[in-house]
Amino acid sequence: MLNPQRRYEIAPPASSLYCPDAFISPLEIDDAVARALAEDLGRAGDVTSVATVPEDAQARAIVVARAGGRIAGLPLVEAVVRRLSPDAQIVPHARDGDAVEKKTALMTITGNARAVLAAERTALNFAGHLSGVATATASLVDKLKGTSTRLVCTRKTTPGLRSLQKYAVRCGGGYNHRFGLDDAVLIKDNHIAVAGGIRPALQRAKSVVGHLVKIEIEVDTMDQLREVLDTGLADVLLVDNFTVPMLRDAVKLVDGRMVIEASGGITHDNAAEIAATGVDYVSSGAITHSAPNLDIALDIEM
Amino acid sequence: MLNPQRRYEIAPPASSLYCPDAFISPLEIDDAVARALAEDLGRAGDVTSVATVPEDAQARAIVVARAGGRIAGLPLVEAVVRRLSPDAQIVPHARDGDAVEKKTALMTITGNARAVLAAERTALNFAGHLSGVATATASLVDKLKGTSTRLVCTRKTTPGLRSLQKYAVRCGGGYNHRFGLDDAVLIKDNHIAVAGGIRPALQRAKSVVGHLVKIEIEVDTMDQLREVLDTGLADVLLVDNFTVPMLRDAVKLVDGRMVIEASGGITHDNAAEIAATGVDYVSSGAITHSAPNLDIALDIEM
Amino acid sequence: MLNPQRRYEIAPPASSLYCPDAFISPLEIDDAVARALAEDLGRAGDVTSVATVPEDAQARAIVVARAGGRIAGLPLVEAVVRRLSPDAQIVPHARDGDAVEKKTALMTITGNARAVLAAERTALNFAGHLSGVATATASLVDKLKGTSTRLVCTRKTTPGLRSLQKYAVRCGGGYNHRFGLDDAVLIKDNHIAVAGGIRPALQRAKSVVGHLVKIEIEVDTMDQLREVLDTGLADVLLVDNFTVPMLRDAVKLVDGRMVIEASGGITHDNAAEIAATGVDYVSSGAITHSAPNLDIALDIEM
Amino acid sequence: MLNPQRRYEIAPPASSLYCPDAFISPLEIDDAVARALAEDLGRAGDVTSVATVPEDAQARAIVVARAGGRIAGLPLVEAVVRRLSPDAQIVPHARDGDAVEKKTALMTITGNARAVLAAERTALNFAGHLSGVATATASLVDKLKGTSTRLVCTRKTTPGLRSLQKYAVRCGGGYNHRFGLDDAVLIKDNHIAVAGGIRPALQRAKSVVGHLVKIEIEVDTMDQLREVLDTGLADVLLVDNFTVPMLRDAVKLVDGRMVIEASGGITHDNAAEIAATGVDYVSSGAITHSAPNLDIALDIEM
Amino acid sequence: MLNPQRRYEIAPPASSLYCPDAFISPLEIDDAVARALAEDLGRAGDVTSVATVPEDAQARAIVVARAGGRIAGLPLVEAVVRRLSPDAQIVPHARDGDAVEKKTALMTITGNARAVLAAERTALNFAGHLSGVATATASLVDKLKGTSTRLVCTRKTTPGLRSLQKYAVRCGGGYNHRFGLDDAVLIKDNHIAVAGGIRPALQRAKSVVGHLVKIEIEVDTMDQLREVLDTGLADVLLVDNFTVPMLRDAVKLVDGRMVIEASGGITHDNAAEIAATGVDYVSSGAITHSAPNLDIALDIEM
Amino acid sequence: MLNPQRRYEIAPPASSLYCPDAFISPLEIDDAVARALAEDLGRAGDVTSVATVPEDAQARAIVVARAGGRIAGLPLVEAVVRRLSPDAQIVPHARDGDAVEKKTALMTITGNARAVLAAERTALNFAGHLSGVATATASLVDKLKGTSTRLVCTRKTTPGLRSLQKYAVRCGGGYNHRFGLDDAVLIKDNHIAVAGGIRPALQRAKSVVGHLVKIEIEVDTMDQLREVLDTGLADVLLVDNFTVPMLRDAVKLVDGRMVIEASGGITHDNAAEIAATGVDYVSSGAITHSAPNLDIALDIEM
Repeated sequence: MLNPQRRYEIAPPASSLYCPDAFISPLEIDDAVARALAEDLGRAGDVTSVATVPEDAQARAIVVARAGGRIAGLPLVEAVVRRLSPDAQIVPHARDGDAVEKKTALMTITGNARAVLAAERTALNFAGHLSGVATATASLVDKLKGTSTRLVCTRKTTPGLRSLQKYAVRCGGGYNHRFGLDDAVLIKDNHIAVAGGIRPALQRAKSVVGHLVKIEIEVDTMDQLREVLDTGLADVLLVDNFTVPMLRDAVKLVDGRMVIEASGGITHDNAAEIAATGVDYVSSGAITHSAPNLDIALDIEM
Repeated sequence: MLNPQRRYEIAPPASSLYCPDAFISPLEIDDAVARALAEDLGRAGDVTSVATVPEDAQARAIVVARAGGRIAGLPLVEAVVRRLSPDAQIVPHARDGDAVEKKTALMTITGNARAVLAAERTALNFAGHLSGVATATASLVDKLKGTSTRLVCTRKTTPGLRSLQKYAVRCGGGYNHRFGLDDAVLIKDNHIAVAGGIRPALQRAKSVVGHLVKIEIEVDTMDQLREVLDTGLADVLLVDNFTVPMLRDAVKLVDGRMVIEASGGITHDNAAEIAATGVDYVSSGAITHSAPNLDIALDIEM
Repeated sequence: MLNPQRRYEIAPPASSLYCPDAFISPLEIDDAVARALAEDLGRAGDVTSVATVPEDAQARAIVVARAGGRIAGLPLVEAVVRRLSPDAQIVPHARDGDAVEKKTALMTITGNARAVLAAERTALNFAGHLSGVATATASLVDKLKGTSTRLVCTRKTTPGLRSLQKYAVRCGGGYNHRFGLDDAVLIKDNHIAVAGGIRPALQRAKSVVGHLVKIEIEVDTMDQLREVLDTGLADVLLVDNFTVPMLRDAVKLVDGRMVIEASGGITHDNAAEIAATGVDYVSSGAITHSAPNLDIALDIEM
Repeated sequence: MLNPQRRYEIAPPASSLYCPDAFISPLEIDDAVARALAEDLGRAGDVTSVATVPEDAQARAIVVARAGGRIAGLPLVEAVVRRLSPDAQIVPHARDGDAVEKKTALMTITGNARAVLAAERTALNFAGHLSGVATATASLVDKLKGTSTRLVCTRKTTPGLRSLQKYAVRCGGGYNHRFGLDDAVLIKDNHIAVAGGIRPALQRAKSVVGHLVKIEIEVDTMDQLREVLDTGLADVLLVDNFTVPMLRDAVKLVDGRMVIEASGGITHDNAAEIAATGVDYVSSGAITHSAPNLDIALDIEM
Repeated sequence: MLNPQRRYEIAPPASSLYCPDAFISPLEIDDAVARALAEDLGRAGDVTSVATVPEDAQARAIVVARAGGRIAGLPLVEAVVRRLSPDAQIVPHARDGDAVEKKTALMTITGNARAVLAAERTALNFAGHLSGVATATASLVDKLKGTSTRLVCTRKTTPGLRSLQKYAVRCGGGYNHRFGLDDAVLIKDNHIAVAGGIRPALQRAKSVVGHLVKIEIEVDTMDQLREVLDTGLADVLLVDNFTVPMLRDAVKLVDGRMVIEASGGITHDNAAEIAATGVDYVSSGAITHSAPNLDIALDIEM
Repeated sequence: MLNPQRRYEIAPPASSLYCPDAFISPLEIDDAVARALAEDLGRAGDVTSVATVPEDAQARAIVVARAGGRIAGLPLVEAVVRRLSPDAQIVPHARDGDAVEKKTALMTITGNARAVLAAERTALNFAGHLSGVATATASLVDKLKGTSTRLVCTRKTTPGLRSLQKYAVRCGGGYNHRFGLDDAVLIKDNHIAVAGGIRPALQRAKSVVGHLVKIEIEVDTMDQLREVLDTGLADVLLVDNFTVPMLRDAVKLVDGRMVIEASGGITHDNAAEIAATGVDYVSSGAITHSAPNLDIALDIEM
């Protein structure tokens, strides 16, 4: 029920639910929503509401951030509600990418009570999870302030949620690494070994992929880094598990000729120090695979 | 590459990959794997491997837990690999539900190198995520030791992964709450309000649902709890955000006539104290929606 | 064509198409309709109508029950029509769960003639089949009048129509048994045998399933029944193929401590006698797997 | 459990599961099986078997016709079992289209006990339903013996099961009418009315459909029949609700120049008399939409 | 951008987008559009537009035929646009089946600029491809002018586009051959050989297929043709790779008793001569499998 | 039937069916095959073969290129056959990417005759279409011989076949442009206009996309080209409809600082001349959207 003690103010309508400058196919949203609702409604739907709520009861519900953080997932909340109640009225008070304080009203939903109750958990699961990813991202981005280093995600995502999590990373101020195995080349140690070395690996890649595919290569040592530079065949250098002094040497050596991404064990504690080395990107799997939920709830008045 | 310094011993084959006594439809596994591979392979598949790895190269890969924890997701690892390489050889050294130490080999995979490399990230994303859920569960279950209180999950799950996470909760020693809105009745404050009170809400539910559907009802006060007891119409009592003394009173009052589930803010710090009150179940959303990944990796030898 | 001799009166609009207190996920309806239309329209659609009916012709059609019975399936009729003609006008004169006389108008549809003709057979196949299930159910429920025994369905359903048939059973006044293998435990003879007896089977079940899963167990003899009662571990007793005197003894012995479901050969002839024994539920597979169609037709005026 | 008193003999392996001369796309079988298993296994799968049956237990099961009839659906039984246990051993003792006596063993299945138990109900639902359709068909076909009249089905099928039921009709000795709205033209009263008469309707149809699409037209009177004959534009005449004397006149008048199909109220009682009029086909919706299940069971030995 | 030099006039709204007398299931259109948009939008959607176009920018776009030809695919253009922008305004200036000159405006679309840009390529790919098929068809149909011979397509279609291409053939004035292996019988040389000859093959077919399935048989020689005629069991004769004199003989011999279809190497050069022989149908695979795109573009004004 | 006069020699087995260095997700192949078979088999499957071919007949079939060209699609042929006959024997005599002469045997298939006949058309439609794309590509690539200019495809593909056509382009020796709107930025005239110019458009793109996304920008004039060069923010320059002299100037001006792609009206006639200007890539939509089929057939021996 609508908590009578709630203190939150309700802002005027936002112009859009989406984060500007964040990428997501609308078809991905529809698919994710259909899948999530199917797993929650099962075969019989919301038996509790059918059993206890009159079929024509109306409800007003407010989506509230119970904790402060970075918002992501409001278009999914809308899609979940509309799927069950196409003519529900939805008024956004925030949009994805917004940084909000604890107890901020995000959206007002007015519609059929059974539909709103049936939509509640699925809608919140999306908003809580994606806002969690956005918040974890924003929190780490915050450590990079004052540098030109950008935070970038990885393919270490929760299975089935890749595109949504990548969108949430953008909502949090991070950047997207490749979306899958198919949209960029990333040559790692095994590839180098089996291809017979750094140069042959890069040459083979260059000779088969198109001109709109970037090539990144992982190096573990300064010697490897030099070899990559010599070839002039890679776009991005992935320096994995380099120490801070090594990173500094790498930046100096590369001297702007390639983009440098540092990966491996980036944390809140070391992010600023790593960024200070001048690397262009630091990547983090934790912002997608280990982000805790942001506490988002639905206050309902029927 | 296979790390030459690795210290881990490789155990003999396990009899099965599945956790005994954990529930999952095999169709759910196939669907999840198809979806996850599609999002990683995209349209062009693993361009890096096609560009750098000979098509007939073979690889031997070992799935390794780099951190200690509770394992879940090995059947998904197998399914991911088999989808790309039906005749790969797979030897399990552990099974879901096992508690393992850091650096434990979980599975040996031998097969086409391109297929193994293409499967790697998707397989690990499943294993890391589900083992994360199992480990978070096991860690909280551990706090309940010495009591008869059981840990149970909620519907606060990551969208699209409900059934897999519920399976992982069982792997971690927890129990499953309802899988969706359709397989049990859970009457909350809004339902009670709109139905005109506890008794009418329960009567309505009892009069329409079948004899194989349990009815749980949420109470916020001792008076409500007494009212539920009086009706004799509910199977399970959900006491939400009760203090420890309130929980003690509730257990005493109910005196075994109903199952009691305590929810709201269960943490590592208070779990033991809450369990000591004698409640039958404590429920936690965090074990599914906020479990950090368990670090699981693939050591590959080509 | 609209039969000029028709005698049926057309009632004012009904408030809803759905049966109150019957359970169905709206996603199940959409899926069933998409599947059924796809199988009827095939690749080329309704070639006859395209060949003979002008593209802008309008039609008014009345869905009529040609035989008396219990109605189920009107929301599917609406969904079929809307799928082919989103702006058709639909006025319901009855709703699911209604008992109607022969020649009752159920719904008036006004829209594009080609769309109405293309929708006709698929819409009627749903309405006729589900009303058949509802009517068969209602007819058997009628035999239980004056007792507290309820009629319940089984998993013996027509493949692919489980959830719709369960909904239709509710429309007919029956109750739903479990919807699948996953939402309740039902221990049968083979399970008991392989688990080493009734008590170990129940203990194993109790030790692994959650607190919102009911446990039913099948017994074939009075001795087994006593053994189940002794354990106190089951929620529901399934007495299969008991004679009426045995059922009487069972009811007496159980004395309200468990719910009793009688199954096996329930017919119109013996239902009243069985109910008189005081069993809580009788279950019937025939109401779902062998219910004849109810004759429902579309009178069209173009 | 395997009934010790069973008297049935087990025949040697049949050469195939399919009915010769019956039509079904193998993709339709796979889709139907996937859908049916999904609705029965739900999210958690067979919780009872996981809870009570050891994971490596083996079972031998015999599919038995408990009642005599015409068999259809054995390939679906096989597909259901193989979906859950790819390496189960399956030995057929009968094939679709066989007429069997009560207590005939149809198939022996040996495999993992949990998989066999989980497959049981879905497999039997297919076999029972489709054998029901085949049996109802065969029973009506039997009435046509000694005439050249063939029994043909309609589009009045159970939604989602069109192709399977059409296959079962062939198993029962019936013939298939069109499979959907797209594979033949059938001009009915409404089409004639809106097209401006029989001749313009047929001319329009003839002028737009290809040379491999047959054209059938429904007539309600002898005058209409003559008009159709005069045009020479139709392949098949559908005489709806003609009395027996009218049918005799129609056959005489047509004199082999067109195929005649009689529809409307064909029953066991009047089928022979109608066939004796010399019509080429009689059509029945009841054999698909109202066929009761044939009692088929699984005897399991674990 | 809207080309300032464009000379094309914009016609008033057309009454419909569909070609009259052409067949297509609306579900096929939705499926094709969903699939095509998914492959173009991928996981992240239109990154360029998100990066460079304001989210509330509006665009007006005109679909233009840059080359003259026969139009097909406008309903797909509409469906693509509506999928991304449900409230876009769409005004058709032509409809499928229209023969248009170079520089003809076909449709005006007004809506959200990002949505229009994202829809552009997918919409044009449909319109260009299907108009290509329609144009190739119309061009060959043109050669048959003055004869009663009709042009008919084959099953030699582009995989996944069968039903759309068959619709486009109708838009071009051609006729449809069977849509798949299931809606007509076509007996070829291998079938005849294995069935033991023409008569047994036809007898077998006649004895198992329904009365709404036409039977066509391929003959390679005059003797085979005579044998088919003698049986009186086939509806259509497929004469494959007959010379013109042979075709003349065939027409004479058949003398209207069967429909004759000539196949094999029909080109613009020989079509008129072949038609002059009096065959009823000539079939061409090239109009579907080898039709070049018609140049259709989108002029956008933002 | 196997043509006794055939002259083709059958080569020993090829090592693989796939073209080395060409990209395609295996899931895309399975999806395309399932879709194509579904549209050909429809509801009833291959009625002709069921009617005329004994169920246990075996067939040997040889896939033959009747015309010379570049092969693509053999893995799809295999997948089609295996879907209908999992234990068919398949021996490849060529692989994708091979240039073959007229009358070259590509693959020998031995298996159930009904399955082989049912697979025939779908398999050939894939092989014919994709080999057509590969052949058109190879033919245009041939014109670029002796230069370092590469041929690249576009997004002007046949709807639903994007990934397969891109694979076929590689089989023909061409390179892949972006696979969709999501894997690279391509800024065109409308984007530039609405973003307020070339620099702001590039700056906006650079500021939001990740470091593994390439940025291409279209220019129509030399001035625009210079402006792009000045920014240093683009990876690839798309010069659209430049004359040969303009291309020469552009190459000179850019002087290796960016990749140059020339688009617009590339034909067999002008390709060599354009390549001689020194542009890095020429792009062609015709190789995907207008490639005629390569004549591939199946010779069957039963």
